[in-house]
Amino acid sequence: MKALRVKDHRVQLADVPAPGQNGEALVRVVRSGICNTDLEIIRGYAGFNGTIGHEFVGVVERADDSAGLVGKRVVGEINVGCGMCELCVVGDPRHCAARTVLGIHGRDGAHAEFLALPAGNLIEVPETVADAAAVFAEPLAAAYGIFEQVTVGPETKVAVIGDGKLGLLCAMTMRLRNDLVSLIGKHPEKMAIVEKLGVEVLLLGRETIPTRNFDIVVEASGSETGFATALEVVKPRGKIVLKSTFHGSAKWETAGIVVDEISIIGSRCGRLAPAVELLASNKVKVDDLISEEFGLENGVLAVKQAEKPGVLKILLRP
Amino acid sequence: MKALRVKDHRVQLADVPAPGQNGEALVRVVRSGICNTDLEIIRGYAGFNGTIGHEFVGVVERADDSAGLVGKRVVGEINVGCGMCELCVVGDPRHCAARTVLGIHGRDGAHAEFLALPAGNLIEVPETVADAAAVFAEPLAAAYGIFEQVTVGPETKVAVIGDGKLGLLCAMTMRLRNDLVSLIGKHPEKMAIVEKLGVEVLLLGRETIPTRNFDIVVEASGSETGFATALEVVKPRGKIVLKSTFHGSAKWETAGIVVDEISIIGSRCGRLAPAVELLASNKVKVDDLISEEFGLENGVLAVKQAEKPGVLKILLRP
Repeated sequence: MKALRVKDHRVQLADVPAPGQNGEALVRVVRSGICNTDLEIIRGYAGFNGTIGHEFVGVVERADDSAGLVGKRVVGEINVGCGMCELCVVGDPRHCAARTVLGIHGRDGAHAEFLALPAGNLIEVPETVADAAAVFAEPLAAAYGIFEQVTVGPETKVAVIGDGKLGLLCAMTMRLRNDLVSLIGKHPEKMAIVEKLGVEVLLLGRETIPTRNFDIVVEASGSETGFATALEVVKPRGKIVLKSTFHGSAKWETAGIVVDEISIIGSRCGRLAPAVELLASNKVKVDDLISEEFGLENGVLAVKQAEKPGVLKILLRP
Repeated sequence: MKALRVKDHRVQLADVPAPGQNGEALVRVVRSGICNTDLEIIRGYAGFNGTIGHEFVGVVERADDSAGLVGKRVVGEINVGCGMCELCVVGDPRHCAARTVLGIHGRDGAHAEFLALPAGNLIEVPETVADAAAVFAEPLAAAYGIFEQVTVGPETKVAVIGDGKLGLLCAMTMRLRNDLVSLIGKHPEKMAIVEKLGVEVLLLGRETIPTRNFDIVVEASGSETGFATALEVVKPRGKIVLKSTFHGSAKWETAGIVVDEISIIGSRCGRLAPAVELLASNKVKVDDLISEEFGLENGVLAVKQAEKPGVLKILLRP
């Protein structure tokens, strides 16, 4: 089968065997989405070699122990735990030390004709959710997962930094809680997508961004300067949620964090079931976030397109 | 009066007028303590010029609106707020944007014969607490203030990094909650002070420090390498409490913080009343933390002594 693979910081289309019978479910990928993490992996993040891609919707072709799943359209939780540690036992393998992660760590991913995941990781997608929207279940879960970590009440002032795909999804998600959400970014045309939903947009370099103003700041720009901005705009005793993984380190003024008693909260994966519900109920609409669709055979070109500034979600069709 | 002052990164003993009648209480300093923050201020932290020192015990000489305080032995909250903002109104001026801070920001400090503070900042010290112990009320409050920010239950595994004065006080304080406290440090002779209280001591470079092991890690070493150690030993989804302020910035691998969903919590000042109670009830004993006492007239020499490795609290006697 065709698969988009990374080897030694190079991405290429390769012909590889489809996943064999290993006790996991076999999923025929219908659409997959290119995430910034894919681009970071190509740059060296996570030291991963193999098939990339972790956002997908597909149809179950085989599921030995869960025959009822066969033929169903599904999305999938991307973390696969050992099943035995204390975290796995309580149903949260996202931090299992022995986990593999679809297309990121120790497990081939979704930019391929087929992928394998344990049947327990798969979540059926209601008919009302289009294929292209279902691909967003994983990144939307990552945005919605912020609510597992911080409380956003009706009076909580939230700023999201970064107007990329993840930043826009975070702004949409925070907007579900109140109308005090601001998006700080650099690209008016992308920011307009959430402005029409009632998110205040603040253009960096053009508008005065109020400092020490927000209870919660979601850093989704993936840049060192984005974090510096977060430190400027967060209130004393406020919280900064770090969403982006990127390859490298940032230099932080630690004294300000101590003196103002800021909390910085790393935040990665959410749960997919609530995200699928949000899509099914139309509470979050992702159509505006799709830039283009490529055939998987043009996957290398699609990655180059995804790397361009201003481009939002690129979908792949096997 | 004599005062130990910093000007342009130099510390010197100076002769300055005692605080005048400005509506605040006048306190005759009995003992003051040299804190690492004093040393950081001399190096340029906080850009402060003036009389340093924020740990003290003294006797109230004048208190226009609180005559009952005159003659009382007191310690003092070091943050003085504007009295009008929303934080000050609820009785917590520690983050008032217009605050001054004794010997740190906009207000002369305690290494002097007299200091001024609003009467409302002063807390009477019971007779059972010796002068030398009372000086520890401020740093002990900073350690105990961690409980305002994180919950330490009977099963919570805590590591404290750094065996300086603040690290030892943090270890003693955490030990009040359970017997799962470890101190990670470099100086066996200092670590022995808390080892005899039942704190496990782990010598950096000599012993294997268990990684991904602690629910809460208190970083009190004030060094960039201390923070790197904190990231190594904290569990996924664990919390790192940053206690030390130092002049400079640290380079942090942000991806690890996001992937393991670590929380980093800046932590500065606590409240003095609970700290005075801990000292009065003998639940925390600080005698072992005192290295030496100098007359204020030898303050410059005392600072030099405090800068030496292995030295704990240096007291000044005006």
